[in-house]
Amino acid sequence: MLSNKEINFKEITRALGALVIIESLFMLLGIPFTLYYHDNDLLSILYSSLITGSVGFILVLLAGKKKRKHVGKREAYIIVSLAWVIISLFGTLPFLLSGTITSFTDAFFETMSGFTTTGSSVLNDIEAVSKGVLFWRSMTHWIGGMGIIVLTLAIMPLLGVGGIQLFAAEVPGPEPDKLHPTITGTAKRLWLIYVTLTFAETILLIFGGMSLFDALCHAFGTMATGGFSTQNNSIAGYGPYIQYVIIFFMFLAGVNFSLHYFFSHAKWKKVFNNEEFRFYSFLIFSSALFITILIYSFQGSDLEVTFRNSLFQVVSIVTTTGFVSDNYLVWPSFAWFVIFLLMFTGGSAGSTGGGIKAMRLLLLFKTASTQLKKLVHPRAFIPVKYNGKSIKDDIIFSIMAFFLFYAIIFAMGTFIMSALGLDFKTAIGATISSLGNIGPGIGKVGPVDNFASIPAFGKWVLSFLMLLGRLELFTILVFLSPGFWKK
Amino acid sequence: MLSNKEINFKEITRALGALVIIESLFMLLGIPFTLYYHDNDLLSILYSSLITGSVGFILVLLAGKKKRKHVGKREAYIIVSLAWVIISLFGTLPFLLSGTITSFTDAFFETMSGFTTTGSSVLNDIEAVSKGVLFWRSMTHWIGGMGIIVLTLAIMPLLGVGGIQLFAAEVPGPEPDKLHPTITGTAKRLWLIYVTLTFAETILLIFGGMSLFDALCHAFGTMATGGFSTQNNSIAGYGPYIQYVIIFFMFLAGVNFSLHYFFSHAKWKKVFNNEEFRFYSFLIFSSALFITILIYSFQGSDLEVTFRNSLFQVVSIVTTTGFVSDNYLVWPSFAWFVIFLLMFTGGSAGSTGGGIKAMRLLLLFKTASTQLKKLVHPRAFIPVKYNGKSIKDDIIFSIMAFFLFYAIIFAMGTFIMSALGLDFKTAIGATISSLGNIGPGIGKVGPVDNFASIPAFGKWVLSFLMLLGRLELFTILVFLSPGFWKK
Repeated sequence: MLSNKEINFKEITRALGALVIIESLFMLLGIPFTLYYHDNDLLSILYSSLITGSVGFILVLLAGKKKRKHVGKREAYIIVSLAWVIISLFGTLPFLLSGTITSFTDAFFETMSGFTTTGSSVLNDIEAVSKGVLFWRSMTHWIGGMGIIVLTLAIMPLLGVGGIQLFAAEVPGPEPDKLHPTITGTAKRLWLIYVTLTFAETILLIFGGMSLFDALCHAFGTMATGGFSTQNNSIAGYGPYIQYVIIFFMFLAGVNFSLHYFFSHAKWKKVFNNEEFRFYSFLIFSSALFITILIYSFQGSDLEVTFRNSLFQVVSIVTTTGFVSDNYLVWPSFAWFVIFLLMFTGGSAGSTGGGIKAMRLLLLFKTASTQLKKLVHPRAFIPVKYNGKSIKDDIIFSIMAFFLFYAIIFAMGTFIMSALGLDFKTAIGATISSLGNIGPGIGKVGPVDNFASIPAFGKWVLSFLMLLGRLELFTILVFLSPGFWKK
Repeated sequence: MLSNKEINFKEITRALGALVIIESLFMLLGIPFTLYYHDNDLLSILYSSLITGSVGFILVLLAGKKKRKHVGKREAYIIVSLAWVIISLFGTLPFLLSGTITSFTDAFFETMSGFTTTGSSVLNDIEAVSKGVLFWRSMTHWIGGMGIIVLTLAIMPLLGVGGIQLFAAEVPGPEPDKLHPTITGTAKRLWLIYVTLTFAETILLIFGGMSLFDALCHAFGTMATGGFSTQNNSIAGYGPYIQYVIIFFMFLAGVNFSLHYFFSHAKWKKVFNNEEFRFYSFLIFSSALFITILIYSFQGSDLEVTFRNSLFQVVSIVTTTGFVSDNYLVWPSFAWFVIFLLMFTGGSAGSTGGGIKAMRLLLLFKTASTQLKKLVHPRAFIPVKYNGKSIKDDIIFSIMAFFLFYAIIFAMGTFIMSALGLDFKTAIGATISSLGNIGPGIGKVGPVDNFASIPAFGKWVLSFLMLLGRLELFTILVFLSPGFWKK
């Protein structure tokens, strides 16, 4: 229930100010690479950090002294929605000041794509960009991934957004009423896992011959299910070892992070009996196998390469990472079509992955199959069960509503992109790719293309879709509800 | 609840036999035109009718004497599903015996397209076909439309398929338990409306200069929301008067037939306060207006012509008729995209229109908007209301399941069509057009194309999709439920 009080704008300002200050510190992390590679962007990065940090301090000062006031639901919605917008605004500075990207629209698109862990780019020649700026580009992914884990596992369950109550059902965390100090406790545990996995992947990538810089950037892109690479042809140029390492970590990044927590506490049963985990794994491996068989039987060629490419692309799309090791658009149409359909799935709930999410799909299938049974036994009470528990109708409704809004927003997005002159495939591809936080789409925004040619207005629309998708739609849609603004 | 008895195959055989006998009689109705136009297909039609009628009699004889047994739910599902298949099988005879269509696959596709009131054709030159066969072709629409009204308003509500309980909420009809003799009473009232409207349209078309033959065929195609024309360029060659007449009757055919019943009894309030009717009307007129403005502001040209073409195509697609007065694929992309989106709507429940149906869409929107309100007031009880009544959760679930199965079947259908080598647009267009019983699609199966070039296997898949869509999915899907086959 929302409080009847006025919206507490001071708390909102303070929270956003703090976020911007943290952002300014993260900007500085690229400096060692700027120095090591002797690129010319040291000053651009320092200025960016300075401007960002100063604005942050001003915001915190404006907010005044902290009072012992609760931050309510309404403030939480506003903070979360504005957070991604405001850090994307300041995140454009390194791109703009260094001259890497000259248009503000393009810079905002690139940054929003980074923070929402989408990974769509407007850069035509990534390898020509300075290491310092590239590091910031990959860092936006990593920050975004960090943010989304806390958001979906610690904050959103309290807001009851789109069935997301189920995400964190068993994570040790705060009570479902007010935003509670133990969010910090939950967040710390989850971040430790996130940092550990990023570290492990970096080591394994260096072991495969990558430089520390490339290894870190790709680890950021993987663990955030982002997809920005430091190479023009993404992961296609790397050998099988690196590709398998990235497949493995993309898979992990798409798993609910509370399962990583249980796994690290040796609660194997909780992990392997988790229905979403099983569904997610089944979806990935059955799709990869299916595509492997299709391509292999129609085109022959090397079986291991076929399998690796199929698995890589499937994991990359299902987890909404968007790294590319092979151009799926030149596969036989039935094989790439599977990839296209997988764009409508998504990673696990409570992972860094975007999209509709495995949990929601699973519950949708279960609800639908319950309805089939009811046709035969109309008076029988057949509850939808998930991980052994009966799911309340309210949560099912919430998930159904999510599914419907997703479809409506997808249709509207595609319409707008069509109206801007994009062809049918490209319009569909760009929309689902942005809404699902994937990265590559189909048509002219496929895996070997980029988003540079999209009209400026289209980039703003796609940026908004990224935000909508990343924040599980309802965090933004709630502002459309008149009740939200009433005292 | 299904009875525990064995499935009563004798009753099924008897019902199907009777249907086939009725079909054989309908075949004879084209004979006056065969004689009048001196075409050579008199014998083909007589033989078709004779074969069909004979098989019908044999089936009825095989079923033996009627016993005072109830026809249960299970039998009803089987009869309904097989009905469309079996009448389509015999319905191919006039095409095959006359040599109009030589391939059985093509003939079955054309006939299923007719009886499901889809209106997709494999004929390249319709005007070269004899009047007798063309009359049968249009007659399949009319029979199919007649069948679907009884099915959705009198039989399906008893089966509880996909929220369809709501369709007939207020029609005087049978009790929701066993198939009851007063189905006949309901059916007679609805058929009277159907026949009256067909008659009225025929007269108005003749008044506009059509021959009796063309007027009847187009009236059949309109009232059934079918879309078979006797002209190669559908309705494009006719003048404004005829186009407006057809627009008006397409609109009427897409309205719940129980509203026509109320209208004829001067219960205006019941009609104009009906939420589905309002939504359906709003959808059509706002879309038509939107497209008119788009086309007019970008291309100029005559405003009346632009409006007429927009309205015609919108009504034709929303009601899933599929008549064509203008090639929407050559409209500016944003305008034809609206038409494409409208392919995912459909006529009113309890009309002859196909698709998802206005009622289901309306209830989906209402449920989704309820969820938005719940975000702000999570503990409030906010029921979904429809025509002033609170809708039970069970019905909402049923509608949600329909929506989900529709999406799954659409995705699977598109995948299969892609695998058969169709390009992306054509695969999507052919699938939604068949599943929604529309007729024209997009890509190579657009409004000025036909389905002749689709591979044979694809035609069978599309025929199955037409059947699935026509029977509200669940009538067929129920067979997948293991419980259905248990004693």
